[in-house]
Amino acid sequence: MAIATRATELLGIKHPILLAPMDLIADGQLAAAVSQAGGFGIIGGGYGDQAWLEREMDAAGSARVGVGFITWSLAKQPHLLDVALKRRPAAIMLSFGDVGPHAPKVKEAGALLICQVQTLEQALHAAVHGADILVAQGAEAGGHGMSRSTMPFVPAVVDTIPGVPVVAAGGIADGRGLAAALMLGADGVLLGTRFYATQEAAASGAAKGCIVAASGDDTTRGILFDIARDRVWPAPYTGRVLRNGFSEAWRGREGELMQRREEVGARYDEARAHNDFSIAALIVGEAVDLVNDVPPAAEVVRRVVAEAEARLTNRAERFRIVREPRLPPVHTLAAAE
Amino acid sequence: MAIATRATELLGIKHPILLAPMDLIADGQLAAAVSQAGGFGIIGGGYGDQAWLEREMDAAGSARVGVGFITWSLAKQPHLLDVALKRRPAAIMLSFGDVGPHAPKVKEAGALLICQVQTLEQALHAAVHGADILVAQGAEAGGHGMSRSTMPFVPAVVDTIPGVPVVAAGGIADGRGLAAALMLGADGVLLGTRFYATQEAAASGAAKGCIVAASGDDTTRGILFDIARDRVWPAPYTGRVLRNGFSEAWRGREGELMQRREEVGARYDEARAHNDFSIAALIVGEAVDLVNDVPPAAEVVRRVVAEAEARLTNRAERFRIVREPRLPPVHTLAAAE
Repeated sequence: MAIATRATELLGIKHPILLAPMDLIADGQLAAAVSQAGGFGIIGGGYGDQAWLEREMDAAGSARVGVGFITWSLAKQPHLLDVALKRRPAAIMLSFGDVGPHAPKVKEAGALLICQVQTLEQALHAAVHGADILVAQGAEAGGHGMSRSTMPFVPAVVDTIPGVPVVAAGGIADGRGLAAALMLGADGVLLGTRFYATQEAAASGAAKGCIVAASGDDTTRGILFDIARDRVWPAPYTGRVLRNGFSEAWRGREGELMQRREEVGARYDEARAHNDFSIAALIVGEAVDLVNDVPPAAEVVRRVVAEAEARLTNRAERFRIVREPRLPPVHTLAAAE
Repeated sequence: MAIATRATELLGIKHPILLAPMDLIADGQLAAAVSQAGGFGIIGGGYGDQAWLEREMDAAGSARVGVGFITWSLAKQPHLLDVALKRRPAAIMLSFGDVGPHAPKVKEAGALLICQVQTLEQALHAAVHGADILVAQGAEAGGHGMSRSTMPFVPAVVDTIPGVPVVAAGGIADGRGLAAALMLGADGVLLGTRFYATQEAAASGAAKGCIVAASGDDTTRGILFDIARDRVWPAPYTGRVLRNGFSEAWRGREGELMQRREEVGARYDEARAHNDFSIAALIVGEAVDLVNDVPPAAEVVRRVVAEAEARLTNRAERFRIVREPRLPPVHTLAAAE
């Protein structure tokens, strides 16, 4: 069984489930696994390491995948878009910045242009520049984003840009989220944290174990981790991470951390290298509550679709739509699903 | 037509739509209108003005309504709970604070106990104290709240407390939101901003007009408006309001505003009295995008249910569930809804 939408048709995929192009985590292997399972894998081109990008695109092999870039970072080394397009990805996903300078190249190369947006203004801008798919990202998402929330933002984007398929991102990790997103008018979902905790994700067992154990009550948005790793983003972007000893110790002291970067940064980098998540940030979203195991990526795709389909068809389990008969009065007590 | 859930059964209502007990805005007239339309109206007992509370409970007349309190404020004048219970409301809703001291009185009086929660920890606490219904509130909601978001928070509460009906709050203003909430496992929705912009809401035409015109991109969370009106809440609560000249001018200067309260507060109070929303905060949620008119409350209830029902049953409009036939191969291209 499958769920067909404008997005599945456009991307030529079976299930409306996209892999978030998580920096380093979403490598060729994970992206290929998601695509082979019927979803759409997007390699996390991130800040732009050409050797990594070429290697991971090669590693995806014959799988039909996309490549995602951090737009403001791509602007500093725009040739990376040529590097990616040369390998003919099915789509380029641009997030966080002005898509204007890059959009024509993507379209000319025949790749689909997926634009992740965080405000209605950005959605309009992306649509004007020819976005084929809009990813409406709520701030409950892990990693970088802004402040809108998925629940009210998705229908607002759908209303504002009815002609472009909208994919919901942020706070979704299971079939309930996919079913809810479809009800909001979305054509699919993009999952980060859920795919982070899969066998194929390019992350340590320690990181994946932390995700399984973590509570959504324990995430926080900020820029402390970006300061510590010397990668401060332009305003207004902040990032969602799991709260830890480091984030609590430095809370509200961004300026001081900036001033003491050299000293603190070395310890921070060491913690990152050793998977010490009491210091290093684990970049996850609020949906971490809904992630309780580390299955293969294909199993995630299968489960999400099956659960969504069950919710969408076997509604009676939780609620019933009751039709009130007008006439004849003998039907007063009749209730139909 | 109606949508029946555990919440509608428990509350004895027709539609799983609750009115958020907005301070001053949700008066007896609005609460009665929502209940008479088949939803559940909850009078906004707010900070606790006894004369107002008695008047508005009387104004609700014979309509079956509830009363909501700000729990930390109720703790300062607990006799107000007796005042409310004496008039035999169908339910008491407690939000923002420890429900422990008040829960036994509510249960003894035979009223249902509705607890609004913002974290999983609060949800557990409320369940332990006998909550009959949990309202899981995301930070996209207007007014006070915390930091979880509706999309991931609702299913997490459902998973944590499967035995208690959960009502989704925050970011919901139409039938798409109700349908999505049901998919997430909720038993209903609680609407604030949507009912603020109704004929019956106790607010000026200017306020309602601002809501109709506003964009969800333009709301912000903070405590500046609470400082200005001399009503600072205990941590970690903040409030969502529409961004305006005042919020932008004072952004990040909470301490200074506190120090200059007397001087600035007088001007602020005057702005409130004169509906000058360039200074006074308009307390609305992110779902303000989805609010485009000022109908009667009954019309809101009717529309939300009708739209949810349409989404839940006429799915083919936006997506199709495609069953893949196994055999015989002649069916390969067959697709069934």
